[in-house]
Amino acid sequence: MDDLTEETLVFQRIADFHEWFAERRAASACSVTRARLDQLDGWHIQQGTGTIQHHSGKFFAVDGLEISTDHASVSSWTQPIIIQPESGILGILVKRFHGVPHFLMQAKVEPGNIGLLQLSPTVQATRSNYTRVHKGKAVPYLEYFQAPRRGRILSDVLQSEQGSWFLHKRNRNMIIEITDDVEVLEDFCWLTAAQLGELLRWDHVVNMDSRTVLAGWPLAETHWGRDAAIDRDQLSELLSWFTEAKSRYQLTRQRIPLTNVKNWIISPERIVHENDAYFAIVGVDVKGAGREVAGWSQPMIEPRHPGVVAFVTRHDGDEPRVLVHAHTQAGTHDVVEMAPTVQCAPGNYEDTPPDRRPSFLDYVLSAGRERVLFDALHSEEGGRFYQAENRYLVVEAGPDLPEETGPDFAWMTLSQLAELARYGNYVNVEARNLLACLLFT
Amino acid sequence: MDDLTEETLVFQRIADFHEWFAERRAASACSVTRARLDQLDGWHIQQGTGTIQHHSGKFFAVDGLEISTDHASVSSWTQPIIIQPESGILGILVKRFHGVPHFLMQAKVEPGNIGLLQLSPTVQATRSNYTRVHKGKAVPYLEYFQAPRRGRILSDVLQSEQGSWFLHKRNRNMIIEITDDVEVLEDFCWLTAAQLGELLRWDHVVNMDSRTVLAGWPLAETHWGRDAAIDRDQLSELLSWFTEAKSRYQLTRQRIPLTNVKNWIISPERIVHENDAYFAIVGVDVKGAGREVAGWSQPMIEPRHPGVVAFVTRHDGDEPRVLVHAHTQAGTHDVVEMAPTVQCAPGNYEDTPPDRRPSFLDYVLSAGRERVLFDALHSEEGGRFYQAENRYLVVEAGPDLPEETGPDFAWMTLSQLAELARYGNYVNVEARNLLACLLFT
Repeated sequence: MDDLTEETLVFQRIADFHEWFAERRAASACSVTRARLDQLDGWHIQQGTGTIQHHSGKFFAVDGLEISTDHASVSSWTQPIIIQPESGILGILVKRFHGVPHFLMQAKVEPGNIGLLQLSPTVQATRSNYTRVHKGKAVPYLEYFQAPRRGRILSDVLQSEQGSWFLHKRNRNMIIEITDDVEVLEDFCWLTAAQLGELLRWDHVVNMDSRTVLAGWPLAETHWGRDAAIDRDQLSELLSWFTEAKSRYQLTRQRIPLTNVKNWIISPERIVHENDAYFAIVGVDVKGAGREVAGWSQPMIEPRHPGVVAFVTRHDGDEPRVLVHAHTQAGTHDVVEMAPTVQCAPGNYEDTPPDRRPSFLDYVLSAGRERVLFDALHSEEGGRFYQAENRYLVVEAGPDLPEETGPDFAWMTLSQLAELARYGNYVNVEARNLLACLLFT
Repeated sequence: MDDLTEETLVFQRIADFHEWFAERRAASACSVTRARLDQLDGWHIQQGTGTIQHHSGKFFAVDGLEISTDHASVSSWTQPIIIQPESGILGILVKRFHGVPHFLMQAKVEPGNIGLLQLSPTVQATRSNYTRVHKGKAVPYLEYFQAPRRGRILSDVLQSEQGSWFLHKRNRNMIIEITDDVEVLEDFCWLTAAQLGELLRWDHVVNMDSRTVLAGWPLAETHWGRDAAIDRDQLSELLSWFTEAKSRYQLTRQRIPLTNVKNWIISPERIVHENDAYFAIVGVDVKGAGREVAGWSQPMIEPRHPGVVAFVTRHDGDEPRVLVHAHTQAGTHDVVEMAPTVQCAPGNYEDTPPDRRPSFLDYVLSAGRERVLFDALHSEEGGRFYQAENRYLVVEAGPDLPEETGPDFAWMTLSQLAELARYGNYVNVEARNLLACLLFT
């Protein structure tokens, strides 16, 4: 093996990455323009029900959902939601050069990304993509993530995605370490963990799919050092806290015709909430190179406000601990998942009296700069969400944090959170994204 | 604390237990008689759909299900199934006397149990039971399993039950260790792990709910000794094997009116399969003492044939390994769960050509006696299943076992299986039952 050849697109300095990334951006001419929902090429609005779906019946659909729960600020509501029963593959290839793990990342345009081009996993493909429903190009590197596989499996788990916007969607998150020679295709590059950590501190560079996959990177490989042995009794307490929350609350959902959602204004152009809150369903036309197909149209979710996703942490033991929230959302698979301390769009709570605002929201937003350990803006999934921006925050708890946080919250170590994230539908996508930021920075 | 008082109903010899149990049996006069489905007190058959449900709308219902899958011997079928969306509590209290853990077990009559009286967990209650829908007696010891709890949590997880007969049913499985003084009520007794192990080798003594809860007993507390540290890489391989199976296969279900099930003969008396195979839906009238209410009627599932539930094991390393099967059943929550090597009713395969019989069925049934490490008959859940009997087997692999077992099977250590059983919907109820037998004997 010729290391010099093989290590093509390993960057000595992060500035070299930025130069390469700027080149890729220039090469990936792409335009995204808004379009009316009733004029999206390949899509139709079903007579009667209003369901927005693809002619192939594949990809995804936008439909209505009725939610009843005793674990939200209102006990029932209806909303549009994305129905995407297929699960895709999000996979990152890892290879050690001179002992240092490198991650094969892809510069990829997605219509909803802020800045359009961001770093994706090696493979980011829905089943429709990789079974080539749209007759596009083959997905490169897919063979590393499909049976029969070679390589060392570091992570492989079906994980949930945004519960406010997806019903039961999940993707297979994989990290595979190989020793094979790999051809580095155009748009791909190798990055070290340290480089990824630096880029996670930049706004809108590392995409959501990369972040959720990176949450599976073993803690022992990070600067946090060896995995602390997981204490059985402590883990039993946490699992019991989670089981208790699942048992304490109820969540029932029923799909309804999209035309039956209440408090939403449906027009041939778009769907908006009557208070101009939450999100809208909009259409986009995409023209651009570097994708499986030359151009396409699709509906997307456009959030009305940017969000805040924050962990409150404590460094009073051997290992930092994070305050995890047992959280229920419209699309949550099984009543609750483990969410960050705070996860909401503050813009939706502007007129809410202080005692009814989300717990710890004001606490994290008002934290002094010296207590903010991590602060970056990231885009959510650019294939479904249009310019969905979250502020990812890690805030060290001060002495003013109440000792008693209530039954919906639990403190856990990074090791414990990382261990739970190895199982599906325990740790939600926002918490996994923050976990990735903590593991790599 | 007066140990002598407190240790009431700790048995010095297992013979003392049998004597006590015989007394409890004599005291629990109970009769179970068959009844027509259309004449079950408190139940009605819904006009049009044929759904059998309780007047309260609680407890459970019998309805129809249509199943499509590429992971069964036929690609689609319809069948009656029990719909029980509520989850109940199955909880065992543990207390150490002179350092030895004792389990508080209950002699409890259930209409479907072979022998009627068997050993149940300390608490075995559906939500309808403990919220007292039927206005019966309060459930004793319930307070130990409901928040706010005291005691050390050894296990607390929502677990699936029989996937062939239940759609999505699950119960909360709990083991709580306490140091409090506990009053031992009539029908309750303390048993050591060794005594439970001995009773698990008897036929039809330890009921299914006890067995599934006991599967959560920490391996480190058993004669298998300290938990082997769980190797991260090996666990990653197993989790990946499971994720791969979930991704490889499809399973879709749709509830249909019970009157629309094909190949089943529905009459006012009972529901049977046209080939007299699988199971029947029958009714029973129960009269007896020692329950929350004096008498009741209910529909039950009566299997046509006894079943076989078997692990093939290997003792070629530090720890025994079991051969686990990624198995799909009608009611499986998420495509596959980890099942025993063999799980079926051989009577349903009498006319099946050898190459289409369930894998390893003939292997375990023909094993020489020297290779049979465990062999006992147990009843399945006596509250829903009428005289459902499984032969629980553990068979040591001989040199004749094929090395290549195919992608649906994986070898794992007892530690690994026990670790996975701490998470919900990984290890199915039959595998957990066998795990309990392995942990305690």
